[in-house]
Amino acid sequence: MTSSVVSTQVQLVARPAGWPVPADFRLARIELGELGPNEVRVANEFISVDPYMRGRMNDVKSYAPPYSLGATMGGGAVGRVVASRADAVAVGDVVVHQLGWRDVAQGDAAGFRVVPELAGVPLSANLGVLGMTAFTAYVGLLEIAHLTPGDTVFVSGAAGAVGSMVGQIARLKGAGRVVGSAGSAAKVELLTSRYGFDAAFNYRDGAIAEQLAAAAPEGVDVYFDNVGGEHLEAALEMANPGGRVAACGAISQYNESAAPVGPRNLSNVVTRGLTIKGFTVGNYLQHYPAFAAEMGAWLAADAVVFDETVVDGIDHAVEAFLGLMRGENTGKMVVRTLPAT
Amino acid sequence: MTSSVVSTQVQLVARPAGWPVPADFRLARIELGELGPNEVRVANEFISVDPYMRGRMNDVKSYAPPYSLGATMGGGAVGRVVASRADAVAVGDVVVHQLGWRDVAQGDAAGFRVVPELAGVPLSANLGVLGMTAFTAYVGLLEIAHLTPGDTVFVSGAAGAVGSMVGQIARLKGAGRVVGSAGSAAKVELLTSRYGFDAAFNYRDGAIAEQLAAAAPEGVDVYFDNVGGEHLEAALEMANPGGRVAACGAISQYNESAAPVGPRNLSNVVTRGLTIKGFTVGNYLQHYPAFAAEMGAWLAADAVVFDETVVDGIDHAVEAFLGLMRGENTGKMVVRTLPAT
Repeated sequence: MTSSVVSTQVQLVARPAGWPVPADFRLARIELGELGPNEVRVANEFISVDPYMRGRMNDVKSYAPPYSLGATMGGGAVGRVVASRADAVAVGDVVVHQLGWRDVAQGDAAGFRVVPELAGVPLSANLGVLGMTAFTAYVGLLEIAHLTPGDTVFVSGAAGAVGSMVGQIARLKGAGRVVGSAGSAAKVELLTSRYGFDAAFNYRDGAIAEQLAAAAPEGVDVYFDNVGGEHLEAALEMANPGGRVAACGAISQYNESAAPVGPRNLSNVVTRGLTIKGFTVGNYLQHYPAFAAEMGAWLAADAVVFDETVVDGIDHAVEAFLGLMRGENTGKMVVRTLPAT
Repeated sequence: MTSSVVSTQVQLVARPAGWPVPADFRLARIELGELGPNEVRVANEFISVDPYMRGRMNDVKSYAPPYSLGATMGGGAVGRVVASRADAVAVGDVVVHQLGWRDVAQGDAAGFRVVPELAGVPLSANLGVLGMTAFTAYVGLLEIAHLTPGDTVFVSGAAGAVGSMVGQIARLKGAGRVVGSAGSAAKVELLTSRYGFDAAFNYRDGAIAEQLAAAAPEGVDVYFDNVGGEHLEAALEMANPGGRVAACGAISQYNESAAPVGPRNLSNVVTRGLTIKGFTVGNYLQHYPAFAAEMGAWLAADAVVFDETVVDGIDHAVEAFLGLMRGENTGKMVVRTLPAT
């Protein structure tokens, strides 16, 4: 029961310059030792790939420390306990952890959080609608942007795991108008037909500022920024006095090797009294219980829908991550890791 | 006593493209009618010229409406009542108002605020250390940037009316280190010798980011931005996690006719959880009584020093304004308007 097993893991071996390439990673097969006191062994079922991981591949000052070269990629994962020497964790329990890109995870039980299994909800939901991405949407809208009933809310990357939740939570919390942008006609269709957006546009179809002006003619009160760049500039152009930007990410710039140019209209921040506030959800965990309670109720009431894009096999994790960076996902991108033992 | 007089006024007649030129203004001599019921007539002693006025010369969406072409330039002024048909205002009272660039002002008493005359304090102080500029420093530090004892504070335009107060108020409120930048060796000397800054540099001496890194090696917690451009980029580069930017102005860009490029490192806002918050002090007037009480006490205790750059004559107001935009002032720039009647 505590005999050794082999864990297949994906490690970062070079810091990408611009777009990551497969050679920046390696697949390692690591023999795990026997369980120590209070340790558990978990067969992962899903691992999370997220845009923020690109930033951690760089060696820069940030809230989240950079990934170490030669170490296994960290990140969210969910699996089932297959062996335990911890009193609080039983074989068969479903747990969420941050040990990332590996098919079998093992360590002190303190690093694993037991979560309930909900009828009709896949385990992968713990990485999305019940996990970090939806929580990011919740914190950004409520704690960072201070969403007020009646606000016009604009979100970029709106068909992604975070963006699709921003739109729905904004609506549930009383937004007056919800506008989103995405990168394909199919996603734009999904925004209005499935996620309840009032208006949506394909940012590849033309100047973002013009499309946003058409979609939000009364201006924007809250902009949830997943993208940066031209999107941010357009949002500042359409911002109403007192407007707020929840700066969550800048995926348009993560893989640029040259320093990107900032918005040319940043002076609107002064003249219109705008606030741009960046955040990393890990600093707002005190709001997690409130989120979990609200989201649980919304799911039970079918008030929220969610989608996932699933890639099979830990050996395809890099491919899944690159697909995410290219916007090939709808909703949450996850890697399904078939149990190795 | 209420007979008509001539008021000499400066009017905006063309919207500047880039740097304002004298031809964008005209001097008008306007015959004032007799006082109506509840009206007062004021012989101005000082009028204020401020960087924000440049923004109001443009026809753009902003908290403050654009100046109208052909109308007299609005703004702060202080003078003495020479005639009154209002019960609450007596001849001889000192009043502050917003009727701007004129030697004689006249209108409903509701537009004039009677202020006390303090021993040893010139009337012009009502436009600076007791007026809008020091109040701007106070609001920006306390209400916008949420200054916390121990913070390292950096302010640009530090020898100006707002900047010199930012440095002193930050120190009085417990900042751990106060750093400023200015545009001449003489101003830099003043910052450390007179205004109590811990470190200061001349932004014309070299790369701002490098000079700031040397002056604030432990990073910046609060940046009070009067300047924008390269200063803002440097501050974002040196910002500590959770850092705050009070965005008050962008004087480096006000006279650029091409759209300026934004900071190339705006993504630090996300990774370090920074907040950039713009403000216009007119939206924070509820804090004025607290400011006036604290500043009055500081002045009485000689805890605050202030300087003024005085230009004589309403017909030199445009010159004074342009000198301000070029940074020729130390402390508050005012125009002394000798009483016309």
